[in-house]
Amino acid sequence: MDFFEVINKRASVREYQDRAIDAGILKTLVDAGSRAPTARGVEPWEFVVITRRQTLKQLAELVSPNGAFIGRAAAAIVVFSRDTKYFLEDGCAATENILLAAAAQGLGGCWIAGDKKPYAGAVGELLRVPAGMKLVSIISLGWPDTDAVQKKNRSGEDVLHWEQF
Amino acid sequence: MDFFEVINKRASVREYQDRAIDAGILKTLVDAGSRAPTARGVEPWEFVVITRRQTLKQLAELVSPNGAFIGRAAAAIVVFSRDTKYFLEDGCAATENILLAAAAQGLGGCWIAGDKKPYAGAVGELLRVPAGMKLVSIISLGWPDTDAVQKKNRSGEDVLHWEQF
Repeated sequence: MDFFEVINKRASVREYQDRAIDAGILKTLVDAGSRAPTARGVEPWEFVVITRRQTLKQLAELVSPNGAFIGRAAAAIVVFSRDTKYFLEDGCAATENILLAAAAQGLGGCWIAGDKKPYAGAVGELLRVPAGMKLVSIISLGWPDTDAVQKKNRSGEDVLHWEQF
Repeated sequence: MDFFEVINKRASVREYQDRAIDAGILKTLVDAGSRAPTARGVEPWEFVVITRRQTLKQLAELVSPNGAFIGRAAAAIVVFSRDTKYFLEDGCAATENILLAAAAQGLGGCWIAGDKKPYAGAVGELLRVPAGMKLVSIISLGWPDTDAVQKKNRSGEDVLHWEQF
């Protein structure tokens, strides 16, 4: 799909068809995440791909009520990082790459907050992530029921300032 | 350009031709940034586009030595945000959208850190940004001299974990 078509199409999708996502597509998404820019070239990220319904339901319990829909997702990609100075910048760039790659594949996805959330430690324990790793984000994924609509209240012109604020 | 071609092509480019970037292209980049996901739908970002050589040189002085190359860039997009709980997540997703959009246009770009840097306040003052706004990132932009190569030490397979870490 054309790049700008993907940028204009990506939207937060929280309702999914009851249909699995091929492992090959999930690998493609993680590969896109791993191609994000990274401060000082450290590439501090790790991606846990979840397709087991039981684990998705356990995740849903941890991130409820806001993220409860992940219990009905076809898959999740959970983004962790070593605790570097710029782990959140690196991890969020990787998260956005994955969300865009999902849209490019026709998938719907939604970013569930990780860092600063009280459940961050419990998510790491559930997925057996080594202590000291930071939870960046949880991405729910699935085939959308209907075409998602990108909701924006501020246009590009609204947020652009030439030469100074 | 095809989406995955852009993902695979984006690289940090710090050397540029002495050639301006059309205002229309810079608008396209900011529009891509404004289409990033945003926690709670707040869209807290503001983008300052700089093309004046004098301002680019002043920016370069502030972010030297690491970011000194911005003094020779054709343009910069400086990403600010209201100080929301998830301003860094939102702002970094927007930054990545802009870097990818630049690659899609054939431009080279490089992410210069903003948040947590001692120069954050001075950059805001230089660009007359209201007090209290957070500096997320500074993006240098220009037409690359040569084809940039994406450098990666860890492949998608290296960073992927199935079902648990």
